[in-house]
Amino acid sequence: MSTNGYHVAVVGATGAVGQQMLVTLEKRGFPIASLKLLSSKRSAGKEITFKGESYTVEEATPESFEGVQIALFSAGGSVSKALAPEAVKRGAIVVDNTSAFRMDPEVPLVVPEVNAADLRGNKGIIANPNCSTIQMVAALEPIRQKLGLKKVIVSTYQAVSGAGLEAVDELKSQTADLLAGKEAKPEILPVGGDKKHYQIAFNAIPQIDVFQENGYTFEEMKMMNETKKILHMAELQVAATCVRLPIETGHSESVYIETEQEGATVDELKSLLSDAPGVTLQDDISQQVYPMAANCVGEDDVFVGRIRRDLDQANGYHFWVVSDNLLKGAALNSVQIAESLIEQDLLS
Amino acid sequence: MSTNGYHVAVVGATGAVGQQMLVTLEKRGFPIASLKLLSSKRSAGKEITFKGESYTVEEATPESFEGVQIALFSAGGSVSKALAPEAVKRGAIVVDNTSAFRMDPEVPLVVPEVNAADLRGNKGIIANPNCSTIQMVAALEPIRQKLGLKKVIVSTYQAVSGAGLEAVDELKSQTADLLAGKEAKPEILPVGGDKKHYQIAFNAIPQIDVFQENGYTFEEMKMMNETKKILHMAELQVAATCVRLPIETGHSESVYIETEQEGATVDELKSLLSDAPGVTLQDDISQQVYPMAANCVGEDDVFVGRIRRDLDQANGYHFWVVSDNLLKGAALNSVQIAESLIEQDLLS
Repeated sequence: MSTNGYHVAVVGATGAVGQQMLVTLEKRGFPIASLKLLSSKRSAGKEITFKGESYTVEEATPESFEGVQIALFSAGGSVSKALAPEAVKRGAIVVDNTSAFRMDPEVPLVVPEVNAADLRGNKGIIANPNCSTIQMVAALEPIRQKLGLKKVIVSTYQAVSGAGLEAVDELKSQTADLLAGKEAKPEILPVGGDKKHYQIAFNAIPQIDVFQENGYTFEEMKMMNETKKILHMAELQVAATCVRLPIETGHSESVYIETEQEGATVDELKSLLSDAPGVTLQDDISQQVYPMAANCVGEDDVFVGRIRRDLDQANGYHFWVVSDNLLKGAALNSVQIAESLIEQDLLS
Repeated sequence: MSTNGYHVAVVGATGAVGQQMLVTLEKRGFPIASLKLLSSKRSAGKEITFKGESYTVEEATPESFEGVQIALFSAGGSVSKALAPEAVKRGAIVVDNTSAFRMDPEVPLVVPEVNAADLRGNKGIIANPNCSTIQMVAALEPIRQKLGLKKVIVSTYQAVSGAGLEAVDELKSQTADLLAGKEAKPEILPVGGDKKHYQIAFNAIPQIDVFQENGYTFEEMKMMNETKKILHMAELQVAATCVRLPIETGHSESVYIETEQEGATVDELKSLLSDAPGVTLQDDISQQVYPMAANCVGEDDVFVGRIRRDLDQANGYHFWVVSDNLLKGAALNSVQIAESLIEQDLLS
C-alpha cells in the first residue's frame, strides 16, 4: 500500500449511496491521500464535509480522473458508461455501483466475502452488484459451499431509498398527506423514467425498474443473472419477484432454496450462517428474534433468520434475509471491494 | 328461501370484520327478516346503524341464538369455541371466521367459487378460511382444474387490518410519531398476545400469529393446511412465509407454482384466470398494469397479475395476487357462504 494512502474519487457524492460511501470511507479509516467529490453539473458547487474538512463538489469530466487511483461510481448507468472508461484510461480502477457493466464478461462482479478472487485479472472496471443480490448471495454462499445449491426462489421487500433520496422524500410526503386526509401525489415511484407513477405510502408495488419482454422486471433479471455470475453457477435455477414497499431503508427477502445435498438440519444451516463472514444470525423464534428492516439501518452485516425446513421437500429450506440496502447493498460493498483490491495488492 | 328472509346474527359486530359484514349484507341485499348484533360484554350497548335503522349491540350469550337461523361469527377463536356449538344447538347454522374449527374434519372449509359443494352434509358449523388462504385458492383453483397442481410457494405482504382495528390505529399513530421525529411505541403487533412487540411503521415483520415448534408461524401453517383442505389435495406441496407490512388494508401475495402439466403459456393462464369466478385479471406490463393493495380496498374480487413463466422450470409460473383482506378475505366470503347455503337449499 502507498504509505500516504490512495487518491480517491467519489462520483455521485451527493446521492443517497454517495453519502453513505463517504460515511463508510471515514468510519472504516480507508487510507486516503486525496479525495475528489464529483457529481453531475446540477449538484456541482455543493459543500460536503469529510473528516471535518469541507470539500466542494465538482462536475465530473474525463479530466477529473487525472491522478485518481480509485474511483467509486454511483451516479447512474449513463454516467458510468460515459466516464468509467475515461477514468480507467487515466490509470484509475473503477468500482461501479450501477448496472452498466455488471453482466459484461470482462468485468468482475464482486461481493468480497463470496468471490474476492474474481478481482484478479480485472481490466480496470469492477462492478458492485445490485443491492438485493448482494445480501442474498452473502447468505447463499456458506450454504452452497457445504450443501450445494440447485434452486433459489426469492420474493423481495425493498425499501424506497434504493430508488434515491427523491423517492424517500416522496414516501414521507405521501404518508403525511394520507394521514392528513389528503390525496397522495405519485410522481417518482415505482420508476422515475417510466410512464405511470403509483402511490407508495401504505401500498406494495410489484415493480422495481422497467419491464422486460419476458414479463420480468429489470430488477428481477438483475437478481437472477447476477446471482449466477457471482456464484459461478450458470446452471443455478433462480427466480425473483421484486416488490417496493413503504420502508425508508432496509431490504428484506423471503428466500426458498433447494440444496444438492438432502437432509441437513436447521441447526446445521444456522451453524454455517453464524460462521459466515459478514453474516449475523438472528434466529430464535422462542424469543421472537428475527431480522427486521427497522433494526438493520446503519449496520454493516447481512442478517438471516426464520430458517426452517420445507415440510415437503427434503432438500428445501426457507429463510429471511435483511440488510441495509445503502450499506452492504451499495456503499459498504463498494468500499470493501476497494479494500480487497489493496489486500490483494491489485491497486498500484 | 323464506319469503321474509332469514333471522341473522352477527357476532363481533363492532370489530373490523364485523363492520364489513354489515356493509356487505346491506350492499348485497342479503334477505334479512331480523338482525341481532352481538359482541363481547365490553362492546355491548354500542349503537350501530344498518339500512338506516339503529341497532343496540347485545352481549353474546347462548340464549342470544334462540330463533337465529344463520350466525356469522368473527369475534375471536375462544368466542367461537364457546358459543358456536350453542348456536347450532338452537338450530342456527354458523359461518365462523376464526381458526377455531377450520381443520376439524367434520367442518367444511369453504370458498364458494372453489368448493361450494362441501357445504352439503355440514353439521351446523362452516368455517371461513384465513384471509390470505382465500385469495390464493381463488387464483389457484382455475389453474388446478386445467393444468393440475404439484407445488405452491407463497410469500405474503399482509395489511395490519387483518390484526384488527387496534392494529390499524397502531400503524397510524406510529407512522405519525416517526414522521414527527418521535419514537414509535409498539404495543400490539406483531401479535397482541405474544411476548414482544415491534414497530410496524416503515418496517416489515416476518411474524403473523404465534410460532409453532416446527419454525413456522400459525398463520403460515393455516395457509399450508387450509389450502390442501379446500382444494382436496392432501398431497399438494405448499409452503408459506407470512409477513406483516405497514399497509392498512389489502393483502398481496407473491406466488410460485408448479403445475402437473408442462408447457402452458402465459396467455393460457391469463385466459383461465380471466374466466374464473370472483377473479379479475389485471395484467398488462406494457401499461404497468398489475394489482396493488391501494387499489383493491372496497373491491369484492381477487386480483391477479404479473403472470410469467419460470425461466428454468417448464411447469413453473409466478404471479401476484391481491385482495381486500376484510372483504373477500373475511366478511364477503362469509356472506357468500350464507348465500350459497340458500342457493343450495341448505338453510332451513
